[in-house]
Amino acid sequence: MIMKIHLEDLEDIATGAAFLGAGGGGDPLIGKLLAQNAIWEFGAPEILPVEELDDDMAVSTAAMLGSPPVILEKGACGDDIDLAIRKLDEYLGRKTEAILPAEMGGINSMLPIMAAARLGLPIIDADGMGRAFPELDMVTFNIYGISATPMVMTDEHLNAVILETGSCKKAEEFARVIATQMGASAMTSPYPMTGADVKRAAVRGTLSLALGIGRAIREGRTGGDPVEYLLTYLRSTPYYNKCKVIFDGKVVDMRREITRGWSIGHCLLEALDGSGRQLEVIFQNEHLVAREEGVTKAIVPDLICTVDRETAEPVPAEQLRFGQRLKVLGVSAAPIMRTPESLAVMGPRAFGLDEDFVPIERL
Amino acid sequence: MIMKIHLEDLEDIATGAAFLGAGGGGDPLIGKLLAQNAIWEFGAPEILPVEELDDDMAVSTAAMLGSPPVILEKGACGDDIDLAIRKLDEYLGRKTEAILPAEMGGINSMLPIMAAARLGLPIIDADGMGRAFPELDMVTFNIYGISATPMVMTDEHLNAVILETGSCKKAEEFARVIATQMGASAMTSPYPMTGADVKRAAVRGTLSLALGIGRAIREGRTGGDPVEYLLTYLRSTPYYNKCKVIFDGKVVDMRREITRGWSIGHCLLEALDGSGRQLEVIFQNEHLVAREEGVTKAIVPDLICTVDRETAEPVPAEQLRFGQRLKVLGVSAAPIMRTPESLAVMGPRAFGLDEDFVPIERL
Repeated sequence: MIMKIHLEDLEDIATGAAFLGAGGGGDPLIGKLLAQNAIWEFGAPEILPVEELDDDMAVSTAAMLGSPPVILEKGACGDDIDLAIRKLDEYLGRKTEAILPAEMGGINSMLPIMAAARLGLPIIDADGMGRAFPELDMVTFNIYGISATPMVMTDEHLNAVILETGSCKKAEEFARVIATQMGASAMTSPYPMTGADVKRAAVRGTLSLALGIGRAIREGRTGGDPVEYLLTYLRSTPYYNKCKVIFDGKVVDMRREITRGWSIGHCLLEALDGSGRQLEVIFQNEHLVAREEGVTKAIVPDLICTVDRETAEPVPAEQLRFGQRLKVLGVSAAPIMRTPESLAVMGPRAFGLDEDFVPIERL
Repeated sequence: MIMKIHLEDLEDIATGAAFLGAGGGGDPLIGKLLAQNAIWEFGAPEILPVEELDDDMAVSTAAMLGSPPVILEKGACGDDIDLAIRKLDEYLGRKTEAILPAEMGGINSMLPIMAAARLGLPIIDADGMGRAFPELDMVTFNIYGISATPMVMTDEHLNAVILETGSCKKAEEFARVIATQMGASAMTSPYPMTGADVKRAAVRGTLSLALGIGRAIREGRTGGDPVEYLLTYLRSTPYYNKCKVIFDGKVVDMRREITRGWSIGHCLLEALDGSGRQLEVIFQNEHLVAREEGVTKAIVPDLICTVDRETAEPVPAEQLRFGQRLKVLGVSAAPIMRTPESLAVMGPRAFGLDEDFVPIERL
């Protein structure tokens, strides 16, 4: 059965992607509008399950890199995304046959839909993390041996830069300064791969997952408790089924600073039950760890998600405010994100936290 | 007759290139050593006159971009230059048949010799300015319609970046930040062109010119007055024949500041004849204008060259010191550098000077 992304699905996917952003990833709103326009103009892309990919299929990613607030202002003209894929194809002497999301959390959930619609290509139901992360190397593609380069970056003036670096870290360094020069945000297509690569290295089913999360939250709003609907849905998924509300409280303290391009800070919540219990959530763009009285309740790469306690609307770190009443959810990341190889790149210590990863189901 | 660059020529070419640096361009010393090593290891490259190029010949430039003091420290491994040319060829689907210097003044006179030797290719007796200039767009290639991109940049770790931009100015902006990320200096191959392009857009004979200048200075040191030998030689050349000593004096004041990546300043000289006459030389990396009592004696793009008054050794702006006894020479640039199109890009107003270009022969 061929599935397509329908216009009416975009709202749900955007909500799901905001949830999977785990506090970061940038607001999917502008991305949703861009994807909407692309589908209106070019038609809806098909969704390809990973299992159905030909091993030798040419696959390209599509993402923005840089500052989400900037892309909120300047958008993406579409020609920039087309150009990135075309340049990569020219450089590699191939023709892209499917678009793969790199990051299903936040705004980057939407740009691959826009790219697929514009280019008349299917979009693969997978990504490189099943959440949001801030760096180019923090994807399963990198961890499982796919080179980040050749990688193309383009801007709205249709300037194009092709990178070929000795390491993913180096690609990240170059990409940052080039994105800055491109006006603080750029379109990019790193990690060119084949269908076989996707089967080996991607997190599967994450586009459907975002859709399912968004749909559960929406249906919960008319049918009962949206957070409960959401948890029920998550428990039905193959990977994200270890999930729970780790706190129910209101924001009593916020600290946030922008440093070296990160939004770093903490959010302190106090329980609504009058018990005086407090939860501290520490974030670096995304939420990294949640601790109650110094005891870890959930930790990266498992997802820590802050949502409105009534509507289950995801509240990203940048929108956390004193007095908000939130539920904090802990959700298991996909098994491929929890391997020793993955934890070395996206586990607690990769973010400077002095503790090992413990799965949410053991906390 | 096939001419080759002999090892014993390198010293003279380096001296000539330092003179053509017109106060800037970076010290050719490290470049000379690199070219020497390449010729030892790979043999001497042939010199191709522009008139002998096939119109459809594939031509690539080779240059360093960034801070000359940095390249003095880190050198160039050679593989970085090879990689730049190879990546450009791969990208364009062609095979480079000759190397063209972009800038005959300073260190960039030598890197194309190194590249040609390493790659077993001839080097073309021409460049894009017949002197030194600080920016990627300040070459006749740009002025006469050759695109700066696709342009490759590489570093000593063999990271490679390919740029394709809508304008030369944009290429310059990207190249600066990428060179900074590459450790403040990078190898680069911009302005890919054909033999026909070179015939239309290059400044001819400038490699022979550098050799002739260096040889005249060297022979003058054993035979009489090196500055007179130099002037006699220059008067025998097709383009650089309007030349004169515009001042003979000692440095009585120096001001220099590093700002936005430029070395900007002025040098004040007082005549040695006791007349009290003073000459002010204003530089931005290269010498831009020389004025006596407010009257312009020579102005960019004509060359203003500061040399030791006894040995005619070129003294770049960065080595100007209080008390040095210098002769200041004014030398006509090639006609292609003095057209209205060229003056718009490399004339006085392009450097923020509030006066029009007047040829040295009318001053």
